[in-house]
Amino acid sequence: MAGSTFGTHFKITTWGESHGKGIGVVVDGCPAGLPLEETDIQKYLNRRKPGQSKFSTQRKETDTIEILSGIFEGKTTGTPISMMVHNEDQRSRDYGDIASYYRPGHADYTFDMKYGFRDYRGGGRSSGRETIGRVAGGAIAAKILQQLGISFLTYTRSIGPVSISKSPEEILLENPINLLEQIQSNPLYMPDISTCKAAQSFLETCMKQKNSAGGIIEGIITGVPAGIGEPVFDKLDANLAKAIFSIGAVKGFEIGDGFAAASSTGFENNDALQTQQGRATFSTNHAGGILGGISNGSPIIFRAAIKPTPSIAATQQTINKHGENIEISIHGRHDPIIVPRAVVVVESMAALTILDLIIEHMGNRLEYLNLSSLK
Amino acid sequence: MAGSTFGTHFKITTWGESHGKGIGVVVDGCPAGLPLEETDIQKYLNRRKPGQSKFSTQRKETDTIEILSGIFEGKTTGTPISMMVHNEDQRSRDYGDIASYYRPGHADYTFDMKYGFRDYRGGGRSSGRETIGRVAGGAIAAKILQQLGISFLTYTRSIGPVSISKSPEEILLENPINLLEQIQSNPLYMPDISTCKAAQSFLETCMKQKNSAGGIIEGIITGVPAGIGEPVFDKLDANLAKAIFSIGAVKGFEIGDGFAAASSTGFENNDALQTQQGRATFSTNHAGGILGGISNGSPIIFRAAIKPTPSIAATQQTINKHGENIEISIHGRHDPIIVPRAVVVVESMAALTILDLIIEHMGNRLEYLNLSSLK
Amino acid sequence: MAGSTFGTHFKITTWGESHGKGIGVVVDGCPAGLPLEETDIQKYLNRRKPGQSKFSTQRKETDTIEILSGIFEGKTTGTPISMMVHNEDQRSRDYGDIASYYRPGHADYTFDMKYGFRDYRGGGRSSGRETIGRVAGGAIAAKILQQLGISFLTYTRSIGPVSISKSPEEILLENPINLLEQIQSNPLYMPDISTCKAAQSFLETCMKQKNSAGGIIEGIITGVPAGIGEPVFDKLDANLAKAIFSIGAVKGFEIGDGFAAASSTGFENNDALQTQQGRATFSTNHAGGILGGISNGSPIIFRAAIKPTPSIAATQQTINKHGENIEISIHGRHDPIIVPRAVVVVESMAALTILDLIIEHMGNRLEYLNLSSLK
Amino acid sequence: MAGSTFGTHFKITTWGESHGKGIGVVVDGCPAGLPLEETDIQKYLNRRKPGQSKFSTQRKETDTIEILSGIFEGKTTGTPISMMVHNEDQRSRDYGDIASYYRPGHADYTFDMKYGFRDYRGGGRSSGRETIGRVAGGAIAAKILQQLGISFLTYTRSIGPVSISKSPEEILLENPINLLEQIQSNPLYMPDISTCKAAQSFLETCMKQKNSAGGIIEGIITGVPAGIGEPVFDKLDANLAKAIFSIGAVKGFEIGDGFAAASSTGFENNDALQTQQGRATFSTNHAGGILGGISNGSPIIFRAAIKPTPSIAATQQTINKHGENIEISIHGRHDPIIVPRAVVVVESMAALTILDLIIEHMGNRLEYLNLSSLK
Repeated sequence: MAGSTFGTHFKITTWGESHGKGIGVVVDGCPAGLPLEETDIQKYLNRRKPGQSKFSTQRKETDTIEILSGIFEGKTTGTPISMMVHNEDQRSRDYGDIASYYRPGHADYTFDMKYGFRDYRGGGRSSGRETIGRVAGGAIAAKILQQLGISFLTYTRSIGPVSISKSPEEILLENPINLLEQIQSNPLYMPDISTCKAAQSFLETCMKQKNSAGGIIEGIITGVPAGIGEPVFDKLDANLAKAIFSIGAVKGFEIGDGFAAASSTGFENNDALQTQQGRATFSTNHAGGILGGISNGSPIIFRAAIKPTPSIAATQQTINKHGENIEISIHGRHDPIIVPRAVVVVESMAALTILDLIIEHMGNRLEYLNLSSLK
Repeated sequence: MAGSTFGTHFKITTWGESHGKGIGVVVDGCPAGLPLEETDIQKYLNRRKPGQSKFSTQRKETDTIEILSGIFEGKTTGTPISMMVHNEDQRSRDYGDIASYYRPGHADYTFDMKYGFRDYRGGGRSSGRETIGRVAGGAIAAKILQQLGISFLTYTRSIGPVSISKSPEEILLENPINLLEQIQSNPLYMPDISTCKAAQSFLETCMKQKNSAGGIIEGIITGVPAGIGEPVFDKLDANLAKAIFSIGAVKGFEIGDGFAAASSTGFENNDALQTQQGRATFSTNHAGGILGGISNGSPIIFRAAIKPTPSIAATQQTINKHGENIEISIHGRHDPIIVPRAVVVVESMAALTILDLIIEHMGNRLEYLNLSSLK
Repeated sequence: MAGSTFGTHFKITTWGESHGKGIGVVVDGCPAGLPLEETDIQKYLNRRKPGQSKFSTQRKETDTIEILSGIFEGKTTGTPISMMVHNEDQRSRDYGDIASYYRPGHADYTFDMKYGFRDYRGGGRSSGRETIGRVAGGAIAAKILQQLGISFLTYTRSIGPVSISKSPEEILLENPINLLEQIQSNPLYMPDISTCKAAQSFLETCMKQKNSAGGIIEGIITGVPAGIGEPVFDKLDANLAKAIFSIGAVKGFEIGDGFAAASSTGFENNDALQTQQGRATFSTNHAGGILGGISNGSPIIFRAAIKPTPSIAATQQTINKHGENIEISIHGRHDPIIVPRAVVVVESMAALTILDLIIEHMGNRLEYLNLSSLK
Repeated sequence: MAGSTFGTHFKITTWGESHGKGIGVVVDGCPAGLPLEETDIQKYLNRRKPGQSKFSTQRKETDTIEILSGIFEGKTTGTPISMMVHNEDQRSRDYGDIASYYRPGHADYTFDMKYGFRDYRGGGRSSGRETIGRVAGGAIAAKILQQLGISFLTYTRSIGPVSISKSPEEILLENPINLLEQIQSNPLYMPDISTCKAAQSFLETCMKQKNSAGGIIEGIITGVPAGIGEPVFDKLDANLAKAIFSIGAVKGFEIGDGFAAASSTGFENNDALQTQQGRATFSTNHAGGILGGISNGSPIIFRAAIKPTPSIAATQQTINKHGENIEISIHGRHDPIIVPRAVVVVESMAALTILDLIIEHMGNRLEYLNLSSLK
């Protein structure tokens, strides 16, 4: 598995298993000179921490980040930033049984097929805890992007069949600070209180039925200037698609109008350009901010479909390692829905993607190669 | 733009613009010993050739491939395979106007923002002709995969609002040879004749209205053994998402149940394992053949949403290079729909992704490292 | 600095500074199924540990390795192996002064020019302690290679002007176990006791004069089958050159006859092929085991020139951060020669290079792609 | 063989065999806006063209470059630049015999071991003609570097035992324009006429004896600012070592004092810093312009050892494909020495390395990330 590194310039390499000594990440290629301390990271990690509501696992992990290298006198030095969270609440007994069988919807079977055996404790490397490294790296990327005037608004669009009705365009018209507060103050990270309540009712029913739910996460990135994204394979949307699809439970990804664009027509779907107050703008944003794989200056809008948590207490059919057909019901402390906790993971992967392509872009014009700062 | 290479082991690097001297690709990392000749490539290229029906551009290009290196005595040598198509039917006058303005829905504006200027003839590097290199490379990948027992079935699921009603599972039950013949013998590459006729009527209406349409392409890959895909970032679905999203007009991508999974429940969405005739199988395939980013042995099922062709003859608002608001209507020989011609491009990118990850997997177990062949 | 990763398949990413919390490495792409425990790593690290003779720094560091991930039930799982050494003996006061000036022969000035400032404690990231991560990764690579029948013999050829007179060919005729014992039982890692004594006298004179010395390290790799190395840029010798030259103090690298080949003739320098006991062999080995960048089955022989330790107690001219010309003399606990401790670093980088190219080679022939193990 | 790409940002991918249809290169990542035409490339290629003196092969190849993409209105567009030379003078009969046996000193045997067979015509992919792609790419890199104030002086230091006595420092004191003219006006590319005559006599003797010679190429790069090179693995010297060692006949590489540094002492080898006319400078340059893998602002000085041409007319021992011991003597039109023609190849690889690391450096400081040009 040499697939543990993401990015070309601003690179993260994650390591660690659910029930090993810890989870970590090495961030390589972080520009020198960024003020950075552990609280910058911790506030991102807290958004994915378990145990914050009845809709997430009741495991208790403080997920306290430790920076091991790459910072001197409070600033990034340009050298690798190694960060780690020690695993704490590891009740291995919860997972004892799963050594012998394959949980439906999990990667148990595929890891065994791939490597010949697997670390079965808590999902091992395929555990959601692996995303801690992504979020820690994403927090740094987001801090740099913030200094460049780029902001992220990421939230839950739907839980099961319950969806907010506001469009991204309507959301962008709201007061961003109030909106962010509203999103982060409800357990489902929804930007609409009444929909959130309906979703909570739906989830409570799921839980009573020993079942689980999925949902859709939407992200809006503002402030990305036109010109970011590398044709023809490292397009902004292509790299974002990979970034988001590399998160465990993602089954779909779309930009702008996405699948709806397929049943639209050219006349409806094209966004007209116009000059407003001396600046080129687009009158609509069906494209979701990307044309030909390059940002066009409009907000970047995307959605990710998250499948229902596969760990459910209801009885399921499966096989054990000897190939025998058996029945199981999965107990332990599982999230009935992972969507809310995945919001910050999606945001982190998006931040890593955008920053990486911004740095890449710095090599794209002869006039950008400026050595005068060095001489 | 250093984004012109796709793949890690079986790599393609594409080059060329719509109205330059030609379009080409260098395939590096092709295993030695594969019988290969130009007809192997040409039959793939013919599937994306323009001018084959009234629903595609009336430009005439034979798109004849020439292999320039990497083959000796009819077999691949393991060294780079360079291939090229010379551009033929380049009526630059058709494109003279677009030097001065930005076409809505095209990459004209974003290329200018990115590089400071652009080759405006026929879309330059953002032209659909760029995909010739992908298809040429994909043809080689598909030939290798065929020898490994892996097959592709790729077709148009919908055109605008007109969609086939058969599920992938139903399609897999049909006779694959008849099915393939049916798909390739209709101008829309649809696996259902009556739906195809309805779609043709819809397209004719679009064309009369100087408008265009999009659609959805579906792909089924059979024969991929369990174990392919590299956690955590080079997951099979993540790399496939990037591969497909790197194709010009793609706005959405999903695996298995995709976005529908988001409103399903864990109980419905989990695929039960069972032993049948001594083999582990999955009783359903909501996952689309991938668990934890690794193939599970079931058919891999995916869909791509293609936006409507942005070049339309109807009047549109835009701006010119001086920032003035203007009205345009785009003439020339444009595809009213690119979905049918994009089918083989989607298939090619999928083949490149699968082969690359299969080669990568050869390093994943100690017992695979076998030097005895060399000694 | 996104340059902290080495390798394509078997990848190491190192992190950490001399006086930070620790030094570490993430190994990604290690094949699953290798029995591995901390003692496998520790015995390599002990060969570079300081304080073992009067010819190395008197700092005391146990350099105890901790494996944080990637091992389950005593075997590698195929997932990233994270390893760390905590820094212990950090007398920052020894380095207080160097914050304000640039030590000749060190990277102080160049790090400041590159990043705008630097972690000046003990050389920060340019410290020799960074090589701990390389040796930890190299120990795993070497263990895998040992299972494939590939062995390393690495030793000090010369210290300052004092050089052993035996050729690599003569060394290969000696009993390898006795030889290894002899090398590792003398403080200079020389394969010849009398030369070692002469070298020790030379070093004692250097130390009395507050001066330092360099030397040449030679490596012999046996058991590499013909066929390893990727034309045209990832040649075995090219990748080995990079690997060795990435070690701090290396100023020269050569393969086989190396620089001497430049004054030889074709007739002398060509190695004749002959069939002996049914096997193709080379009657001589001027090439050092590599032809056209690919191993030829002969032992691979290379040499690295190591510059004298730049930290010396004698008075030197330099400038401070304000650009003022000043005189300094460097005290603290420095190695009068780093060659002996660098031997295992050179061996580690060579092991990483060979293993990476062996894995790469597994994709080079159609017949190697064997999926039957998966099905 | 996926090893045909060099570079991370400014990337070249070479393709082609000695006796195929042609030799080519795709340059990806070239910044947009550089004025470029075929003569910029051709003047570099002419420096490696065969048949220019009696000391090079008498094959006649014009090696005329054709640019196929990436240029519009006389400037680079930022998209891939594809270039090609058609092969012309291919007397395959000269090479008919070598299909059946392995030439000593060549890659015939190793290619067969690696790939199972080989394109034996003229060395196939291991032919010196492969370097045409490198030189074409290097010509573009050098043109960009020239605009950044960076110049190359590359020449033959020695032929066999005949060496110039001037040091690089002495050479740097000469008039650079006169010097360049002198180097390029003699058939051996030596910066000293009398040594050149002695070397010619030596070569004539070699040729009479049906033998061949090697030599040493030296390069001096001026104008590189301090700060270029990426610790810890992509050090400037490490990447340069790989670049130069990837050229066919190179057997040794050194920076600054190189191997001589190994027998020096710290006091002699350290370069003192001093402030002169308000600028930090180094009073000597034993380091060859690189400290800790990062340029220090002094000229970068390096040497490459080139082995004697392996193709000689004298009788040699070898084996054929059936493993039988045979005697051969190689006829055909071979270079008695390749050093003079390799000078521009060395310079090209150095230019590619420096430019790639300069672009990489643009991401190293927060203040370099400037999006204002885009907004």
